[in-house]
Amino acid sequence: MNLVVVNKITELREIIKQYKKEGKTIGLVPTMGCLHKGHASLIKKSSQTCDITVVSVFVNPVQFGPNEDYDKYPRTLESDRQLAAENGACLIFAPSAAQMYPGMLKFSDITMVAPPFKLVDMMCGKSRTGHFDGVCTVVTKLFNIVQPDYAFFGMKDIQQLYIIKKMTADLNIPVEIVPCPLVREESGLALSSRNTYLSDADKKSALSISQSLFTIQNAVKNGIIDTKKLFDTAMAVMDRNVEPEYIEFVDRETFEPVEQIDRPSIAAIAARVNSVRLIDNILIGD
Amino acid sequence: MNLVVVNKITELREIIKQYKKEGKTIGLVPTMGCLHKGHASLIKKSSQTCDITVVSVFVNPVQFGPNEDYDKYPRTLESDRQLAAENGACLIFAPSAAQMYPGMLKFSDITMVAPPFKLVDMMCGKSRTGHFDGVCTVVTKLFNIVQPDYAFFGMKDIQQLYIIKKMTADLNIPVEIVPCPLVREESGLALSSRNTYLSDADKKSALSISQSLFTIQNAVKNGIIDTKKLFDTAMAVMDRNVEPEYIEFVDRETFEPVEQIDRPSIAAIAARVNSVRLIDNILIGD
Repeated sequence: MNLVVVNKITELREIIKQYKKEGKTIGLVPTMGCLHKGHASLIKKSSQTCDITVVSVFVNPVQFGPNEDYDKYPRTLESDRQLAAENGACLIFAPSAAQMYPGMLKFSDITMVAPPFKLVDMMCGKSRTGHFDGVCTVVTKLFNIVQPDYAFFGMKDIQQLYIIKKMTADLNIPVEIVPCPLVREESGLALSSRNTYLSDADKKSALSISQSLFTIQNAVKNGIIDTKKLFDTAMAVMDRNVEPEYIEFVDRETFEPVEQIDRPSIAAIAARVNSVRLIDNILIGD
Repeated sequence: MNLVVVNKITELREIIKQYKKEGKTIGLVPTMGCLHKGHASLIKKSSQTCDITVVSVFVNPVQFGPNEDYDKYPRTLESDRQLAAENGACLIFAPSAAQMYPGMLKFSDITMVAPPFKLVDMMCGKSRTGHFDGVCTVVTKLFNIVQPDYAFFGMKDIQQLYIIKKMTADLNIPVEIVPCPLVREESGLALSSRNTYLSDADKKSALSISQSLFTIQNAVKNGIIDTKKLFDTAMAVMDRNVEPEYIEFVDRETFEPVEQIDRPSIAAIAARVNSVRLIDNILIGD
C-alpha cells in the first residue's frame, strides 16, 4: 500500500471516514517525527494489529516550555516517510501548527486537558511545567481527529504513557492504549530523537544512564530492595559529564513512588548530557 | 418508539454501536434532570434533527462547588422519563456518580478539561470556581460515551454554551453543537430546574430579573448603547429581594465584554433570590 502524507484535518477526516465505512480498524502512532527504530517498533506493532496505521508527525508547541528545544527539535519528514512506509503505515498526518491551533496567540487561549496533579508533580512533570497538559491536549486532539481504535505509545516515555492511560480512562475516550517496549541501541542507550543532539563523546557519557539502570536491575535481582541504596548504586556508575535530574522508583500499577522494591516497579531517570535532556527507565521487581 | 433508560456505560455503548451500524444519526441532550419545557425544546429539536435522541440525566458532582446545591439538586427521573419520551427521545442515559467517576475520592484525582482562563474569569466563572472545568470534563466524557453527531445546549446557560463551543473546536471533537433558544414562562421568568426552589413570593421577586433584561433590550432599541447607563436602567427595575451578582454585556461572536452596544451582543445577569442563584440573558444590539 502506498503511503500518503496528509496535512489538512478535513482531508484526513474524509480518508478515515471512508476506511471506517469499509469496516477497517485504525491504529494511531502519535510522534513528533525524527523517527527511529523505537518508532518503527510502534508502527510495526500497529500495522500488525490494525488494518490502517496512521503516523502523526507533529512537533507540538504546547508541550514545550519557553526555554526548551521547540525551535531546534529535529524535523525530518522525508526520512520519516520512508521509515513509516517500510513499517507498514498507510498515512502520515503532518499538520502545521496553524492547522492544529488556529488563532492561538498564547497557550492560555485554548482549552487544555490537564492530568491529575499527583501524576504531574513528580519525575518529568516537576521540571517541565505544563508539559503533560500540552501532551494530553494534543493527544486528545489527535484522538478526535483520527478516531483510532488503538493508539501505540512507547514505554520510554513511561510517565507520559501512564498519564495518557489515565486520561483515556478518565475521559472515556474510546481508544485502546497499547504500550510498546522501550528500544535500545546495542550499546544500551535508549533510542530517542534527542540523541541526534549528542556528539560521540556525549553519547559515550550518556551510556552511563542506561548502565545505571542495568546496575539497579541487577542489584534488585541480588536482593537489594531499598531504593535509597539502589539510588546510590546507580549514582556510583554515572559518568561525570552526566547531570541526573531525578532517579525515581514507582509502582508499576499505580505509578506511586515506592521505598522498597517489593512489587513490580519501574526505575526511571532523567539526566542532562552537555545540556541535552535524556530519559530512560527499566522494569524491576518482578 | 419506546424510551429505554440505561445506567451502564458499557450497555449504552453497545446500543449506540448498533444504531451507528445501521447508519442512524445520534443527537445528545446533556442535562442534570428535573426536566422542564426548556429541556423539552432541546429534546424536540434533537429528535427533529437526528434519528436517535439520547438524553443524559446526570447531576455532575464535579461542577458543583463545596457550598453549592449538589446534594439538594432535584432528582426526578420518573417525570424526566415521561417528558423525554413525549418529546421524541429514544434513550435516557442516567449513570451513577460511581459509573462516571470510578475510584474518585476527590476532584483532583481525575483528568480535567479546562477552558481558557479568559472565558472563565468572568460572569458565572468568577463566583463558581472550577465550575466550567467540571462542565467541560463531564461533557467531554458524555461526548466520548455517546459519540453523538449533534449535541443540543440551551442558550440560557450562555457562558456554558460558548465554553462548550470553544472546547469542541479546540479539541477537534467531532460533534456539532446546536444552540437552542432560552425558553420563558409566560410571566417572562427563564425556565430553570432551580425555579423549583422558589416560593411564590420568591418567584414574584425573580420576575424582575427578566424584566431588567427586557428593560435593557428596550433601552437599546431606543438608542441607549452605553452599558453603564443600561446597567443603571436594569438596576432601577430590580426587586429589593433580588441580589444581583453581575449584569454583564458581551459581544455575541467573541464573548468579550463590550462597553457600547454597537454590535450584536448579549446582556447577561446572575442574581440570588432568597439565596437561590438564578441566571438569565437576552440578545441585544441587532
